[in-house]
Amino acid sequence: MTINIGVIGAGRIGKLHTENLVMRVPDATVLMVADVIEDAAKDLAARLNIPQATSDHHDILNNPDIDAVVICSATATHAPIMTEAAQARKHIFCEKPIDLSLDKIDAALAAVDEAGVKLQIGFNRRFDVNARAIREAIVSGRIGAPHILQITSRDPAPPSEDYVKVSGGIFLDMTIHDFDMARFLIDSSLVEVFATGSVRIDPMFERANDFDTAVITLRFEDGTIAVINNSRQAVYGYDQTIEVFGSKGAIHSQNMTPNRTVISDADGVHHQKPLYFFLERYNDSFIAEMNAFIDAIANDKATPVTGIDGRAPVVIGLAATKSAYENRPVKLSEIG
Amino acid sequence: MTINIGVIGAGRIGKLHTENLVMRVPDATVLMVADVIEDAAKDLAARLNIPQATSDHHDILNNPDIDAVVICSATATHAPIMTEAAQARKHIFCEKPIDLSLDKIDAALAAVDEAGVKLQIGFNRRFDVNARAIREAIVSGRIGAPHILQITSRDPAPPSEDYVKVSGGIFLDMTIHDFDMARFLIDSSLVEVFATGSVRIDPMFERANDFDTAVITLRFEDGTIAVINNSRQAVYGYDQTIEVFGSKGAIHSQNMTPNRTVISDADGVHHQKPLYFFLERYNDSFIAEMNAFIDAIANDKATPVTGIDGRAPVVIGLAATKSAYENRPVKLSEIG
Amino acid sequence: MTINIGVIGAGRIGKLHTENLVMRVPDATVLMVADVIEDAAKDLAARLNIPQATSDHHDILNNPDIDAVVICSATATHAPIMTEAAQARKHIFCEKPIDLSLDKIDAALAAVDEAGVKLQIGFNRRFDVNARAIREAIVSGRIGAPHILQITSRDPAPPSEDYVKVSGGIFLDMTIHDFDMARFLIDSSLVEVFATGSVRIDPMFERANDFDTAVITLRFEDGTIAVINNSRQAVYGYDQTIEVFGSKGAIHSQNMTPNRTVISDADGVHHQKPLYFFLERYNDSFIAEMNAFIDAIANDKATPVTGIDGRAPVVIGLAATKSAYENRPVKLSEIG
Amino acid sequence: MTINIGVIGAGRIGKLHTENLVMRVPDATVLMVADVIEDAAKDLAARLNIPQATSDHHDILNNPDIDAVVICSATATHAPIMTEAAQARKHIFCEKPIDLSLDKIDAALAAVDEAGVKLQIGFNRRFDVNARAIREAIVSGRIGAPHILQITSRDPAPPSEDYVKVSGGIFLDMTIHDFDMARFLIDSSLVEVFATGSVRIDPMFERANDFDTAVITLRFEDGTIAVINNSRQAVYGYDQTIEVFGSKGAIHSQNMTPNRTVISDADGVHHQKPLYFFLERYNDSFIAEMNAFIDAIANDKATPVTGIDGRAPVVIGLAATKSAYENRPVKLSEIG
Repeated sequence: MTINIGVIGAGRIGKLHTENLVMRVPDATVLMVADVIEDAAKDLAARLNIPQATSDHHDILNNPDIDAVVICSATATHAPIMTEAAQARKHIFCEKPIDLSLDKIDAALAAVDEAGVKLQIGFNRRFDVNARAIREAIVSGRIGAPHILQITSRDPAPPSEDYVKVSGGIFLDMTIHDFDMARFLIDSSLVEVFATGSVRIDPMFERANDFDTAVITLRFEDGTIAVINNSRQAVYGYDQTIEVFGSKGAIHSQNMTPNRTVISDADGVHHQKPLYFFLERYNDSFIAEMNAFIDAIANDKATPVTGIDGRAPVVIGLAATKSAYENRPVKLSEIG
Repeated sequence: MTINIGVIGAGRIGKLHTENLVMRVPDATVLMVADVIEDAAKDLAARLNIPQATSDHHDILNNPDIDAVVICSATATHAPIMTEAAQARKHIFCEKPIDLSLDKIDAALAAVDEAGVKLQIGFNRRFDVNARAIREAIVSGRIGAPHILQITSRDPAPPSEDYVKVSGGIFLDMTIHDFDMARFLIDSSLVEVFATGSVRIDPMFERANDFDTAVITLRFEDGTIAVINNSRQAVYGYDQTIEVFGSKGAIHSQNMTPNRTVISDADGVHHQKPLYFFLERYNDSFIAEMNAFIDAIANDKATPVTGIDGRAPVVIGLAATKSAYENRPVKLSEIG
Repeated sequence: MTINIGVIGAGRIGKLHTENLVMRVPDATVLMVADVIEDAAKDLAARLNIPQATSDHHDILNNPDIDAVVICSATATHAPIMTEAAQARKHIFCEKPIDLSLDKIDAALAAVDEAGVKLQIGFNRRFDVNARAIREAIVSGRIGAPHILQITSRDPAPPSEDYVKVSGGIFLDMTIHDFDMARFLIDSSLVEVFATGSVRIDPMFERANDFDTAVITLRFEDGTIAVINNSRQAVYGYDQTIEVFGSKGAIHSQNMTPNRTVISDADGVHHQKPLYFFLERYNDSFIAEMNAFIDAIANDKATPVTGIDGRAPVVIGLAATKSAYENRPVKLSEIG
Repeated sequence: MTINIGVIGAGRIGKLHTENLVMRVPDATVLMVADVIEDAAKDLAARLNIPQATSDHHDILNNPDIDAVVICSATATHAPIMTEAAQARKHIFCEKPIDLSLDKIDAALAAVDEAGVKLQIGFNRRFDVNARAIREAIVSGRIGAPHILQITSRDPAPPSEDYVKVSGGIFLDMTIHDFDMARFLIDSSLVEVFATGSVRIDPMFERANDFDTAVITLRFEDGTIAVINNSRQAVYGYDQTIEVFGSKGAIHSQNMTPNRTVISDADGVHHQKPLYFFLERYNDSFIAEMNAFIDAIANDKATPVTGIDGRAPVVIGLAATKSAYENRPVKLSEIG
């Protein structure tokens, strides 16, 4: 059984998902690609032998052969397209974040609920081999009850100033992945957030009233404390590590590298740098999340990252933003 | 442009190549699968939507739509099928070893030469990311002139006694990959071999007049010394590491692991074991070698592992075998 | 030239310093040991061939042959003995903390200033090879301007409940070392502290109105953010690592281990656990700090850890304690 | 109880042992130092407050207060001084090698036996924490029966040509330590040696009819195979690692480093180089071997490295030399 897919949005992440669906997800067939820039849709379709390309995503929604949509368009369009897709009875994979407005998120999730279609949000890092091994170590009791969670998440280079201006701020744009990871790993309700940020890399972040360097502390109901540190520029590449410290031990993940060679010379003993950025680092997790989405549809299972999982990190991100600007811990219950 | 392929042999390695050709090699199309056990061919074809399956590999050779064959049949059939395929003007990918008889190898290579078809031998480890990084460190001069090469190559579990009896012995069955690696890495002629072996794991190796544990020293013309150690059973999994020590430094590779997590508990600090065996460890290099083969045909390039590269490790293996049984260094010139 | 020393306090840390002074500090001679438990003083003196032992530390202060005292007595006695020693014109090495009351600290430091004697506080970790290498990487510009500092500091086992009750709380007892480390590494004024703690290990901490698990965020004037995580019980041993992330790179330290062997078996690849606790882990830094103290006296240099360095972490600890109980960031200027 | 020592030879290794005896071996007292260069003896004695210095080692042998001698003089004098010391009823610590002539070794050992004094040979690496942990893993059965032993032993820089000319060749000068390590680790008789060497670093080795690069294969009676690789120049420092591969697992040691910091920057992830050379790397094992020698005398125990342990690696070294020049495996029984 093959699931017929329409991809909405042929930008960087849309291309990535489409290639994966075509090349690496055996049970999916991409029937159509839509992008407001028609040439982008056409180029992608041509390159991957996809039958149809369009500038209007309604062509996808109106196509009765299509079972599911993969929404990779601009963030502001996620919630409305999700609503339309639900109404068209298409299963939905939607890139993160659903929206930065909780009202819009709630409206879209209500439409999905009403339609009874499946929804999966693109928190791909949950599918990473390291994250899964850490999750397993917790679930199996291998490290006992978690006490402290540490996440280091640093980009190799800052985005453009244009992007920064509309990104929603570091906590909603970048830390949101780490908030999801904290929720994925820790089986307790997140209660309170304290965030603090600095501008250490580029004054453009100050101009955008944003930060490029941040540390965020999360308190869970059971007393577990999580601490996340972010930077917009790690000159050595994409630094993505996690540690969970528990009553019976700790588990940490090291960075993934292009190979495992080590060179020793007169200057030192040189290991490989981390894989450069998320396209390289999380390539396999992008494939795995898409296979999981197709599997959920084909076998009528629950998706592994639900609408609630899409909403919650936005709440945390809003709380973190408020915390950083007001310089005080903020309870999630203050946000909604 | 797509290259049409016929796969001959639907055993373990035939299945692997066929899956890779279908799923991971965009420019190849598998048109037919042959296996003397017809059901094996049919099952594989059905699973991967391959149009035709046959018990007679001549059906592939006689099919004018087929550009190239991938020979994965029993070792004894490699040389004759290679000869037939060359005469049928098909490009040839052939699993290692071509044969254990130099006469048969030479006859097959002569047929290939006469036909002018492309030939690539399945020394996939040359395509491994670690091996390539080591080769690059040598070629670029990063570690200077090589002085010592060390290869550790240990299987996770011994093969069956039936297999051992017909394997040709550890040096031709197992070390042959390491002989190829030594040739791939060191740019000097291999002159002499000293091999010594023991039975430390299972008496069945003694019954087969074979070894399960071996150390082989290779001398190159320029004075570089290589040393290989093999075991048929590393209880912690497939141990595959290489070190090249040179005048300006050294490069070594560490084992690849399923993930990069580390668990610390009251008993120690536990890292991941190596990937279990060659199917897991060299998965990416199998894909890369097949892409290279297709690329050589599609773009009329030389293949990266030639007939000479297929013959040479057999010569070394024969020399190593002679050395171990006669307990003396054996010059390659003694073999042929 | 040898410096004559009197050691005050023959408990665990007093013994350690005395042994080091006798065995590992060539330019020091221990003339007398004092302890309120006279037998403790006598035993230690006998074991190390030290001429005199006493139950009254005034015997040391009144001995004109003695150049310097090493104060290892109970914390509550540090400030008064320091004052007496200054008045007796003895140079002073004093274990941390000087006191938990800023008034008492200030009075003692005033006495030291007035007497013009040398004072060194026992923040030995500054002398650790890892800490020094990190400090050098910062000073030399090797990693650029620091942006984020992360300190993991976890004990192998909690202290007794009796100790916990009088310890001053985790921030003044345990984190105080990490506060000193942050000051040692970051060349900017510490402005604000946010601390949060939990009881995850043992209810005795709750009974003592204390925490066993804590995360502390420090903001420096230049925008550098430090984050410290503490636990009273890491089942795998003493976890002591530091990372400084900067504009040109990052430096981190790994745990020190009893040896560098790695065992691979059917269960995994097992590295050594960290050295068990501070006596093992910081043995060399205890020796180095004492050599530095003797060197400062012998060669009339400034000591490397001053009275101000002894006072500052107490201020931070008081701020952290206030922060944790009031659940808000606390400025150092609120404390004094 | 203190053991009174006379040190014979105040060169590099003599200084090292003397400093260790004075500073780090509580139960030893050095009463006299002898060196044919009287000033060398006097300087060393003055620096370490040793009562007497002499140019004539007979002054030590004739001193009735002296219990034991530590022989650090030129290799050619080891055997005769050992004989004299035995006749003078002094316990003997003697640097390796005893001699390069088996006849001279046997004569000296006979004198020791006759006198009934204790003899320990300076194979200090047996006392290294890594070597001991590996030995323990074998003895305890942790890795099962050993199958393969690999030793990498590479110097950071070649010795002077003058030294090379009289060194006895790489196998007797450098590999001798590794031969001892193989004997220390493997509980089976060494039967046969195959050695091969090259000149890859400096033509002076060729002029001295010696090698600077070598690989040596050792066969033990039980089938265990050991392989040693040596280089006179590893540009990254002293490379000293061991692996034992066994039926239940493997243990390997990594190089020791000055600290455990890791720097990540735009060029890579840089670990520390190994400790530079044997003075740094084996500092603790030199101390440990001397404490063991003093302990053997003080408590009338057998020494941990006997005369037989001093003779055996010379036999292996002679066999290896013969093997390399005759290019064939040489049985130890051919040597003596």
